[in-house]
Amino acid sequence: MEFIISIDRTDDRPLQLQLYEIIRQMILSGKLRAGERLPSSRGVAEQLGIARITVTLAYERLLSEGYVASKPKAGTFVNERLPDASVLVRNAHSETISPGARIRLGKIPSFAGRSPELWKDRSQRPKYDFFVGRPNPRSFPTQFWQRSIARHLAYARGAMTEYGDPRGLHALREAIADHLRATRGIDATPDQIVITAGIQGALNLLARVFLTGTQQSTVAVENPSYQGAAFLFSSYGARIHPIQVDENGLDVAQLENFVGNLIYVTPSHQFPTGYTLSLDRRLRLLDWAYRTGSYIIEDDYDSDFRYDGPPLIALAGLDRKDQVIYLGTFSKSIGAGIRIGYLVVPHHLVEQARIVKALLDNCAPWLEQAVIADFIKEGAFLRHLRRIRRSYMSARDALIEEINEHFPGSTLSGVECGMHMMWKIPDSLPTPEELQRRALTCGVGLYPLFSAAAFEYGHASRFRDRSIILGYAALSEDEIREAIRRVSDEFKTRQTSRPDPSPLRKTRRVEAPTKSKTSESRSNPRSTR
Amino acid sequence: MEFIISIDRTDDRPLQLQLYEIIRQMILSGKLRAGERLPSSRGVAEQLGIARITVTLAYERLLSEGYVASKPKAGTFVNERLPDASVLVRNAHSETISPGARIRLGKIPSFAGRSPELWKDRSQRPKYDFFVGRPNPRSFPTQFWQRSIARHLAYARGAMTEYGDPRGLHALREAIADHLRATRGIDATPDQIVITAGIQGALNLLARVFLTGTQQSTVAVENPSYQGAAFLFSSYGARIHPIQVDENGLDVAQLENFVGNLIYVTPSHQFPTGYTLSLDRRLRLLDWAYRTGSYIIEDDYDSDFRYDGPPLIALAGLDRKDQVIYLGTFSKSIGAGIRIGYLVVPHHLVEQARIVKALLDNCAPWLEQAVIADFIKEGAFLRHLRRIRRSYMSARDALIEEINEHFPGSTLSGVECGMHMMWKIPDSLPTPEELQRRALTCGVGLYPLFSAAAFEYGHASRFRDRSIILGYAALSEDEIREAIRRVSDEFKTRQTSRPDPSPLRKTRRVEAPTKSKTSESRSNPRSTR
Repeated sequence: MEFIISIDRTDDRPLQLQLYEIIRQMILSGKLRAGERLPSSRGVAEQLGIARITVTLAYERLLSEGYVASKPKAGTFVNERLPDASVLVRNAHSETISPGARIRLGKIPSFAGRSPELWKDRSQRPKYDFFVGRPNPRSFPTQFWQRSIARHLAYARGAMTEYGDPRGLHALREAIADHLRATRGIDATPDQIVITAGIQGALNLLARVFLTGTQQSTVAVENPSYQGAAFLFSSYGARIHPIQVDENGLDVAQLENFVGNLIYVTPSHQFPTGYTLSLDRRLRLLDWAYRTGSYIIEDDYDSDFRYDGPPLIALAGLDRKDQVIYLGTFSKSIGAGIRIGYLVVPHHLVEQARIVKALLDNCAPWLEQAVIADFIKEGAFLRHLRRIRRSYMSARDALIEEINEHFPGSTLSGVECGMHMMWKIPDSLPTPEELQRRALTCGVGLYPLFSAAAFEYGHASRFRDRSIILGYAALSEDEIREAIRRVSDEFKTRQTSRPDPSPLRKTRRVEAPTKSKTSESRSNPRSTR
Repeated sequence: MEFIISIDRTDDRPLQLQLYEIIRQMILSGKLRAGERLPSSRGVAEQLGIARITVTLAYERLLSEGYVASKPKAGTFVNERLPDASVLVRNAHSETISPGARIRLGKIPSFAGRSPELWKDRSQRPKYDFFVGRPNPRSFPTQFWQRSIARHLAYARGAMTEYGDPRGLHALREAIADHLRATRGIDATPDQIVITAGIQGALNLLARVFLTGTQQSTVAVENPSYQGAAFLFSSYGARIHPIQVDENGLDVAQLENFVGNLIYVTPSHQFPTGYTLSLDRRLRLLDWAYRTGSYIIEDDYDSDFRYDGPPLIALAGLDRKDQVIYLGTFSKSIGAGIRIGYLVVPHHLVEQARIVKALLDNCAPWLEQAVIADFIKEGAFLRHLRRIRRSYMSARDALIEEINEHFPGSTLSGVECGMHMMWKIPDSLPTPEELQRRALTCGVGLYPLFSAAAFEYGHASRFRDRSIILGYAALSEDEIREAIRRVSDEFKTRQTSRPDPSPLRKTRRVEAPTKSKTSESRSNPRSTR
């Protein structure tokens, strides 16, 4: 048998892969017939000047895929029964294939949406990172997770192998209904709750319900707004109608010019400005919805953390005409890596929500739904919230203090609750982008609106030109103090053009208020002075 | 202070909730002013003739929400600082709300898609259930899951609290790339792989990429087809172009009349017929895609289980022009409850896929991705597949044997691989729906096409009028034998009109082939004879 193989040295794919493909093609095209013996791996290796292991690996793959069979002491033979009997008849198409050549496809898909900037490669992160939307990893309830998972896995195999209710685990929906009643003034039955892959999953469900008709829709969003919502609606072909935000939240009066029937809002802690929608405006917003027959999507992503004053009533808690759809998530209170959120829909939308959810992904994964249900029902969730609220409040207080001390002329908004605040930077600082760049050189991650998953519509900037969004929940008090001082030093050094910043630095550091917290001395980077 | 409360006895909401709302409204509307004392819970209970605990609970909720404050030994007072200072100014809207009244919304969302029938409430399931698409719960790798989860949770808190790469965990994408190279002849880099919420999640991603443009699209699907795909494409407004399936799979010749650029196929084990697309037709299908510049979506949902003959090459393994998108899942090989699948996209679609995935749900949950990556990399997945393949093959063999013995004239298709087969029922049996109904009366779940997540387009039925889809993977050999005999007895009894079927039953049971398997005597329902 003649067996001539030539390997293309310009092809940068692994040799074993090329060899495997060449032989496979020879078999498929009938050049190598059933029963024929392949040359020894040693022979092929010598002929081609390649390592024998390369040939062996290619042969092993052909073997595992059923193209060849190995007979002890006799060698490797093309299989009598190939993957398909018709293989030897037709092979014209495979013959014409030249790897690397690529035709232009007649109709390249036209999707051109933008992605929200929520993911950052952790290995590339600066040491002190104020990126938004992340709870403190040190607060993750690992022990509860370990115990609860072990307990559930021990008995619930069917739950792991079967599809679940598209709306999610009933026990979890029950627990959420109880939690919302107690903490947010929302009276919902478990039937109205659908478990989703975070708030993003919930937004998709709603986009499918509201935006996949034949007519183009218009959606009102806050300006500035959350990218994950605004970019999503755009990607469904909806027109975006931005509505200004001021210190009382969405400027509801502007809705009079809006002709659509759907609005997306973050009333508890507007993203990204941090402003809270006043009760007055909440009532006006509901009134607008009732008058125009519209729906309000209320994204309540971080209302679990309120530091000053009593909690506000959710729009969904005020609504008495079933026109508010409420979105909640465990991404901020437990962790974004578990990807569990939920929405509360009015009764008349329950059936549509169930169908859309089934079409989206059948249902949410079972195991961590069961864990969170336990976490809530056993009271551990509320204890967890109290614990981390305290730690986030310390972080917040430290951040406010340091910003005010080191950057006079700053304005901070959205400090009453949540996990981030907006910093209107003083005139002494350069643009947010330049600030970001220079902070990064001293290991600090500061994010202007766009890179903090926010978006401001329009040419005139009211926020983006002078704002930094500071997510502080994932940092300790000490880390925050160190980070802000580093940035402060960076600018003082440069501004005074002194190559050796030590005298100034020392002065400022000695002046810094002394904390009595015992934990500080352990990890405080200043303890070396 | 006058304090008159009247409870609406026709309102079927809990009394504590009604009471809470009434008092909240009184505060919001200024009828109860800051600093005013609420009557004692005992007094209200007596006044209204309700239990005191009901009043206490309502008060506690008002307390927890900041409407009232409790002073020791003095009572409960309306808070000086209410949730919002503007509360006392405007309240007209809340006043007009009458619970129960519901206006007609101007624009009720028009979503009207159909949901795939994959979820069945487990508590309602018949004892012997041939529902499709479920692995055997007894085979779930519980111990591996326990160990791997404990290991990962111990160190990886940041992974639980942060958003991940929208494409999924790199380690898992690497493991899948290796697995596909070894078992399916697909050469993909981890970059081309996107982890999704099962195949349904992958289909949504593709629907967003291909079907959200302004023009109406047409998608070709097999006929009969998988509901999860066909109904999904329809729900995005796409026209469906059904293409007949015969014993060699999709009738590729019919594609000449198709004007679209996207086709969805299940070549390894056509759903629901079980037919395998011949290699000849695979090559013709690729040729069609190359000539017309089209994309092929290859859904390879259950190719892990092949009982007869060597594995076939995936279309994605044959494709050399980057026009096949490959979908795989762990729902069949590990469990649907983990909701992890993936797609392999050509390089030129990677960026669009990443954006769409971020917009869909940011990323997949982290923990079980990490577990599956270990499961594959440590070789445990291949061992698991070998183990369950053996057990599914026994189940399959038992099912074939029983059907052939008890229902002569039957035709079974799709038995070579996968987890289900299609049963063309003999003329002696009634319609599939009637068969389903009567099987249910003896504890056996048999599913005609539609209730087995399949759909046949067109008025003329080629399959649906005489077919039952038998998912056998979740049942043991003994359960299968018992189930088919029960159904057989049900029809023999009725047909012979004998009220006491025992003589016939006994005869048949004695005639049944004796199995030497030791496990049988333990759980065999026949051991009582």
